[in-house]
Amino acid sequence: MTFSEQLEKDIRVIPDFPKPGILFRDITTLLNDAQAFARLLDYLESCYKNSDIDFIAGIESRGFIFGAALASRLCLGFVPIRKAGKLPCATFKESYELEYGSATIEIHKDAFRGQKDAKVLLIDDLLATGGTATAACKLVKNAGAKVVEACFIIELTELGGASKLRALCDVYSILKL
Amino acid sequence: MTFSEQLEKDIRVIPDFPKPGILFRDITTLLNDAQAFARLLDYLESCYKNSDIDFIAGIESRGFIFGAALASRLCLGFVPIRKAGKLPCATFKESYELEYGSATIEIHKDAFRGQKDAKVLLIDDLLATGGTATAACKLVKNAGAKVVEACFIIELTELGGASKLRALCDVYSILKL
Repeated sequence: MTFSEQLEKDIRVIPDFPKPGILFRDITTLLNDAQAFARLLDYLESCYKNSDIDFIAGIESRGFIFGAALASRLCLGFVPIRKAGKLPCATFKESYELEYGSATIEIHKDAFRGQKDAKVLLIDDLLATGGTATAACKLVKNAGAKVVEACFIIELTELGGASKLRALCDVYSILKL
Repeated sequence: MTFSEQLEKDIRVIPDFPKPGILFRDITTLLNDAQAFARLLDYLESCYKNSDIDFIAGIESRGFIFGAALASRLCLGFVPIRKAGKLPCATFKESYELEYGSATIEIHKDAFRGQKDAKVLLIDDLLATGGTATAACKLVKNAGAKVVEACFIIELTELGGASKLRALCDVYSILKL
């Protein structure tokens, strides 16, 4: 079995969540399985341990899980990109469209500690239309750094997020569905 | 300098957030400092590496950062306790009082994979009144497991959360303020 075939087995599929017709990929069965979680982190660590990266940025909330765990493995700083109103200091904000309405995410203006042209690995669990990740790339740029690669545990390829995002950075998805 | 004195230096204090009169402890300066983040995880790993723990549970969102990173270090499964409406499968719910209104958190009913009497380390960044952590302990119990210890990066001792929580589990706070 390949790594991504194993990963697909570790993730549970829930029909009709959050609404009818949606097949939701539930990563909690991957997280609460010690072996599966360690296997994924070992894999991510092997992917990025020799990369020229200064920080890992994770998108709230599930991106925090993988981003912080990988930052700890690689001994890098972790930068949380948060929903609006959560970060206490001066921030940059980006809004993006959702199916209904819009959402806003923020980054601290000093998220990269004044390091010039810091190289950032962006992590989230899921790449769908790419709206959130595109906004996150803009935030990182506004804060004076650059997303050199965006990494996703799962990509829903039909939604075309990767091709949109590739205008901004390299994109790597482990499991393409 | 002791470990907790160093930790206090790594955390930024923001006055009047989220509202006037509150001194907000901003952990983002700890997270984005590779050395400080590694130092904290090394410390947490040394605290718990020989403990009899089966799972780590983290409370959304900042508890995900420390909980997932420590679970990865200790090769344990990670169980996310989430805000209402986020978990896709059957859940237990607990509501608790906030200063204004209330909040609800959830856990998957099968969060502990059917393991009987699993021993759980609960992690969050901040212990204030203990309302969230108490609700989280109840959720873990409802799901058939037991919080053997609750660990916090920061405890605001004046708010009395620890003494309330000690009725349910051991409590360990690294930085008491």
